[in-house]
Amino acid sequence: MSRLALIMVGDELLDGRVAESNSRFLIEEVAAMRGRVVSLEVVADDQGRIAEALDRACKRASAVVVSGGLGPTPDDLTREALAQFAGEELVLDDELVATLTARFESRGRHMTSNNLQQAMRTPTGRSIPNPIGSAPGLWHEVGDVAVILVPGVPSEMRRMWSDSVREMLRPRLGGQAPARIRLRVLRTAESTLAQRVVKAVDAHDGIEVAFCVHDFGVDVLAVGSSPDQDLTSVRDELKHMIGDRIYAEEGVSLPDVILDSLRSRGETLAAAESCTGGLLSKVMTDAPGSSDVFVGAVVAYSNAVKTNQLGVPAVLVQEHGAVSEPVALAMARGVRDRLDADWGVSITGVAGPGGGTEDKPVGTVWLGLSHSQGERALELRLPGDRDQNRQWAVGSALGLLFEQIRSQAR
Amino acid sequence: MSRLALIMVGDELLDGRVAESNSRFLIEEVAAMRGRVVSLEVVADDQGRIAEALDRACKRASAVVVSGGLGPTPDDLTREALAQFAGEELVLDDELVATLTARFESRGRHMTSNNLQQAMRTPTGRSIPNPIGSAPGLWHEVGDVAVILVPGVPSEMRRMWSDSVREMLRPRLGGQAPARIRLRVLRTAESTLAQRVVKAVDAHDGIEVAFCVHDFGVDVLAVGSSPDQDLTSVRDELKHMIGDRIYAEEGVSLPDVILDSLRSRGETLAAAESCTGGLLSKVMTDAPGSSDVFVGAVVAYSNAVKTNQLGVPAVLVQEHGAVSEPVALAMARGVRDRLDADWGVSITGVAGPGGGTEDKPVGTVWLGLSHSQGERALELRLPGDRDQNRQWAVGSALGLLFEQIRSQAR
Repeated sequence: MSRLALIMVGDELLDGRVAESNSRFLIEEVAAMRGRVVSLEVVADDQGRIAEALDRACKRASAVVVSGGLGPTPDDLTREALAQFAGEELVLDDELVATLTARFESRGRHMTSNNLQQAMRTPTGRSIPNPIGSAPGLWHEVGDVAVILVPGVPSEMRRMWSDSVREMLRPRLGGQAPARIRLRVLRTAESTLAQRVVKAVDAHDGIEVAFCVHDFGVDVLAVGSSPDQDLTSVRDELKHMIGDRIYAEEGVSLPDVILDSLRSRGETLAAAESCTGGLLSKVMTDAPGSSDVFVGAVVAYSNAVKTNQLGVPAVLVQEHGAVSEPVALAMARGVRDRLDADWGVSITGVAGPGGGTEDKPVGTVWLGLSHSQGERALELRLPGDRDQNRQWAVGSALGLLFEQIRSQAR
Repeated sequence: MSRLALIMVGDELLDGRVAESNSRFLIEEVAAMRGRVVSLEVVADDQGRIAEALDRACKRASAVVVSGGLGPTPDDLTREALAQFAGEELVLDDELVATLTARFESRGRHMTSNNLQQAMRTPTGRSIPNPIGSAPGLWHEVGDVAVILVPGVPSEMRRMWSDSVREMLRPRLGGQAPARIRLRVLRTAESTLAQRVVKAVDAHDGIEVAFCVHDFGVDVLAVGSSPDQDLTSVRDELKHMIGDRIYAEEGVSLPDVILDSLRSRGETLAAAESCTGGLLSKVMTDAPGSSDVFVGAVVAYSNAVKTNQLGVPAVLVQEHGAVSEPVALAMARGVRDRLDADWGVSITGVAGPGGGTEDKPVGTVWLGLSHSQGERALELRLPGDRDQNRQWAVGSALGLLFEQIRSQAR
């Protein structure tokens, strides 16, 4: 039973003060190691409750990660709860005292007696260094089960995970989940995609398929029935059936795929955004090192900016409206020209909830693309709320750009 | 005991396919109703596990909301788990069958026998309408405890919550948590803020204070010891001690506060962004109806765009570097001038992880502000990773803008 249980500790996670985000990180890390998370509990700062959660978790998992409750205040009770559950008394760890004292001295601060609490550990436990915070982690084994205490502060938890815990856990978790493949597909009508995928896996026994819609498209996941199943032929069949709309396998994001292919061609990109208000630019610059490809953008929220900064003729806006094919194309052309880029991509639309008309209801979006070898435009009718429509418009614009880059490469 | 327990059901929430987001929404809604969430569990599609989680939840709460597992496929087992836990047999609800049949017909699709599963309910339960999906909800009482099943699809869950569940639950949950106030404060050194806050609450018994850091600043929460405690004098004291850096009370966001105050002055805003790549523009346009104030932005990721689109003299960049006070001011002035806005705000910095120098390490950011009544610049040294530094740079730029608008209003 190679399974992981997660326990997140803290009143602030249940009363709306803090959005719990550590579980998302840990679940993705464990999935990438092909481990299985079997349960997740968020519990209050309550020693008894934490101990009960530990008891449940240890019954269903071979490893338990507990995040939070390691600070120096009286409501940080995770160490005490572990001691209670394990039937041990906490002891003061001299090395930890020395580390903490040095940490405080280097910052010109005095350590209080409260902080000594952070130097306590179970007698049979091993402490795990925290390079960026005062709360050390703890590795404690209860029978066959490893219980790992990590800090609740996300940056400290992530650093401790990457520096130590991941490799300590790998022998217990890695490669135990069924074999699986992930194909990343551009935004597509899900029913058409489903039909193709069903055809592709029909001949293969014991393969389950799932569709995961995300910001930039749809992931097709094919999951086998055992860890060492060979999925090569399923992968080939899926790639044959889905074809051109696959933009990547596994974790690479669509912005990164686009940045890489433009970089290898020595080309640059500029964006003109209206309803998406900078979101496309933001996602293109999420990854470091995008500046050699992505030169910049004009967010033309008002029509005057469309005319003055992008050179969109005012008469086009008057005749066709700001959300129209000619305006989308003029925006793409304008930003490509003004920012001196090889590619211009544009988005203009009605994100909602207001601003819709009978002719152009909420969700109407025009995308434009301009390059020395040609131009393209595409109309979308998006069904979501404002956030979704903005997100999907960006995903679709990047999809259009990806397809056009690839078709030129042939 | 007026307490809510949450159970989120679905394999996809534990294996990395879907980021669980319903709990965040529900926790915030319940906090806004002054109810208390006492526990949260995420469980796999496993009837026994769901029933066990229900058992635990009903012991600690007066209401339990279960999200997910109401679909038409064999792994949707939440109804069955509830029936098992409650010791009842599911029955087919004729009204639900009629509703589902009509729903499928209106879309020109045939209902399969699988879909009949969605028309099952416990004999003593009441179904809850789902206006935008095929999975109806269910309200079922076990002794004094109300168990509410809602769909896992976020849009359907939110709609069902707002349309029905919130008001059904209010008598059981509302106003039971201690009285509290929230003051929203611009980004500030937390230790200085803490000192002031401690002084303010020192004379008041039974008040606990918490600091919640979020995208645009820090929230100061003061929580009393009973639901009907009068916090007026604590509020006045806090406002006196923290002073000018409070930008709002309760839930209003900093972008909304800025949009409102500029709107009331009849002024407009334009942005010039470098390292933040469009993020400031994106947050200013998150809310609908921002276009009367926010006219647009230039994302000047490359120096050529800074010069050509914003009129930043190339010699300034050569002499001082792109991350410098003169360039930040020239960017703010340039975007204000070119986009014909009353205010120009600018951000130029080293977000990281690369690009730092000894002189300008990662995290160095210059903010600029330009208005007909004057200009301002501010240097930041941010300690976070790329995402945090971009987020904090935007929060600080908006904070600077807010302070400047207010100081002019005097």
